[in-house]
Amino acid sequence: MTTWLDVPTEHPFGVHHLPYGVFSIGEGSPRVGVRVGDQVLDAGAVAAIGRDAGQVGEGPDLASVWQTPSLNAFLALGRPAWTTAREWLTEILTDEVHRAGVEPHLHSLDEVTLHLPIEVADYVDFYASEDHASNVGQIFRPDSPALPPNWKHLPIGYHGRSGTIVVSGTDVVRPTGQRKAPADAAPSFGPSIRLDIEAELGYVVGGATTLGSRVSVEEAEDHLFGVVLLNDWSARDIQAWEYVPLGPFLGKSFATSISAWVTPLDALREARVPVPGQTDPPVLPYLAGEATGFDIHLEVELNGTVVSRPEYSRMYWAPAQMLAHLTVNGASLRSGDLFASGTISGPARDTRGSLLELTWNGTEPLTLADGSSRGFLEDGDTVTITAWAPGPDGTRVGLGEVAGTIQPAR
Amino acid sequence: MTTWLDVPTEHPFGVHHLPYGVFSIGEGSPRVGVRVGDQVLDAGAVAAIGRDAGQVGEGPDLASVWQTPSLNAFLALGRPAWTTAREWLTEILTDEVHRAGVEPHLHSLDEVTLHLPIEVADYVDFYASEDHASNVGQIFRPDSPALPPNWKHLPIGYHGRSGTIVVSGTDVVRPTGQRKAPADAAPSFGPSIRLDIEAELGYVVGGATTLGSRVSVEEAEDHLFGVVLLNDWSARDIQAWEYVPLGPFLGKSFATSISAWVTPLDALREARVPVPGQTDPPVLPYLAGEATGFDIHLEVELNGTVVSRPEYSRMYWAPAQMLAHLTVNGASLRSGDLFASGTISGPARDTRGSLLELTWNGTEPLTLADGSSRGFLEDGDTVTITAWAPGPDGTRVGLGEVAGTIQPAR
Repeated sequence: MTTWLDVPTEHPFGVHHLPYGVFSIGEGSPRVGVRVGDQVLDAGAVAAIGRDAGQVGEGPDLASVWQTPSLNAFLALGRPAWTTAREWLTEILTDEVHRAGVEPHLHSLDEVTLHLPIEVADYVDFYASEDHASNVGQIFRPDSPALPPNWKHLPIGYHGRSGTIVVSGTDVVRPTGQRKAPADAAPSFGPSIRLDIEAELGYVVGGATTLGSRVSVEEAEDHLFGVVLLNDWSARDIQAWEYVPLGPFLGKSFATSISAWVTPLDALREARVPVPGQTDPPVLPYLAGEATGFDIHLEVELNGTVVSRPEYSRMYWAPAQMLAHLTVNGASLRSGDLFASGTISGPARDTRGSLLELTWNGTEPLTLADGSSRGFLEDGDTVTITAWAPGPDGTRVGLGEVAGTIQPAR
Repeated sequence: MTTWLDVPTEHPFGVHHLPYGVFSIGEGSPRVGVRVGDQVLDAGAVAAIGRDAGQVGEGPDLASVWQTPSLNAFLALGRPAWTTAREWLTEILTDEVHRAGVEPHLHSLDEVTLHLPIEVADYVDFYASEDHASNVGQIFRPDSPALPPNWKHLPIGYHGRSGTIVVSGTDVVRPTGQRKAPADAAPSFGPSIRLDIEAELGYVVGGATTLGSRVSVEEAEDHLFGVVLLNDWSARDIQAWEYVPLGPFLGKSFATSISAWVTPLDALREARVPVPGQTDPPVLPYLAGEATGFDIHLEVELNGTVVSRPEYSRMYWAPAQMLAHLTVNGASLRSGDLFASGTISGPARDTRGSLLELTWNGTEPLTLADGSSRGFLEDGDTVTITAWAPGPDGTRVGLGEVAGTIQPAR
């Protein structure tokens, strides 16, 4: 694909990618933007020109949908509109005839502020990596089988706190709470001393459904708009004490970071891979069908040292299966729902997606480039997760990074 | 308190109560209403008159805040505005001088449609009844102690699905999903055969806080606007198979019903009671302080037969403690957050708040007035939960009912 923009073909945010986000300039209102190279296209502004020029024909008024402070209105339009919008954006960024009209609406990334791209409706976190679930089982429940008995029958998930989802770059205050080691007589109170990360992929949902209806595996991708990188910050000491019997709560709810850019599923066509076999046991019919995963390569950096390279392609459950499971009981979807894959871990130590696993609950510390060692996160630590997937013609699709720095407990 | 309205003093929705809801008439827009007797006051319309007549002085423009389709804008104003608004409403409904202006804006309950009163931000369900937790422990985990070891140290809670919270009167479609009895070799799939209720109180939160800050027990009631009755419909077979290790998910997320009327905390002054002693073990300092419960008497009807009369006054954890715990890790609040008490159960069989407990997991069925028996809910069953609390001068405050009828699985 050629473009009149000064963006090299091999750029991970080239015209083959076109992720959506929300940006503002100075005191201006936040609005939808599309990243191209190291610039942001003011999508609503160019759509308004297109509309007035008759280039954008029948269909929803993208100009007004994109001149809003979140992607939610656009998400509500559904897949046909997402496809039309992407085709039109591709055309105006590749056909020289549009250059004069579009160019004034491109802004350097340096001059914009990026915001949370979606107003998150419900947030669900799954647990779809077999290696992660098995590692956590061994660490948290050493006297039980590593995988819970239900694990290969259904994608285990739970609801998280949507109100504390923040955009990449937001500082994370170390949480305070109760924790009790097995040997302690009573719980103590204070800042978490086992603060951790979880490298995950998040799926942004669009198109509402009605209560009492289901979304099948086959229909699921009509509701999967795109993906973000997600860091599910976790306080392991708080979590271990609180989570039986109703699951993680305060150990997770203090912050969840997502990338500022949402990569459309349509940009990940070349990255599709089958999920690993689900034959032992076979899944129930409502989870069977054509469900694919993605060949996405993650990199986790702690203060500049790469500490892990998780491979998303090993995830046991596909996003379409997670969405079909989430709705099989009749639970409705809203545009802006977000669900995450769960920590992405592989069998090799340097492919584990959490410090809990990388340091085996702090017993095997990591050594960073500056010579310091880490069991869990210290105040001032910065974690940055990046990722890429194969794109068309040998290009790469770079997912938006998700980064955060730990601030001391208050 | 006397009123010019034709509402007897002993009416559970008399002028001492004044709960808020959202209503519409015909094709009109949903807007905030206040219930008085069996009528609904169009709150925004009378506030506009009051504003134009100079009766409503300094402060937020209640007319515009109330002419919206949810209570969220009003919730965002915070406690001082809630108090002012209540004082003003009391004045116009008790002082004859306002009668001519107000009367045209009273509508019979018969002619209005009631809507979900809040746009629910995050929904958390607690587990604050010792008898309930102990009963569930004995039924679900017969080989472990009835109460989990953390239960008396912290109010256990988890996030639920906000998008499937519905207003009283909404039908509930029987959920479908996976379930596996311990004796089964593999899970099976189909409509839930152990569909249950949970009689709970829900707390409506107002006034946002910033990420990284906490709300103390003392400050908590500044954020507690009012209460609703809540039915946390539960599919026990789905729940039992899915909930280890990450907690309830599809067994709960298909529907949660709340009453159409939100009773302000200010209407429950006479209902305050101390929570039962928390001395063995003592609670950590962040949970200590002046935290009170409420003397609220519930009644659960199944197809017209009263099957239980739970007493809220026995709840172990106070709402102020639940809110302080929810935010102790720095999790922020949003106006429209909702948290529920968990099932309200007492020690006597006829005070248990779920069929799971009332029928001891279906082994001791209930007999209804029509002679039929129930272990769990059948299609067509209607469950109605009502409640009252003591009001001023021997009156009663009647909480809005929460009702729902089971529709067959789809």
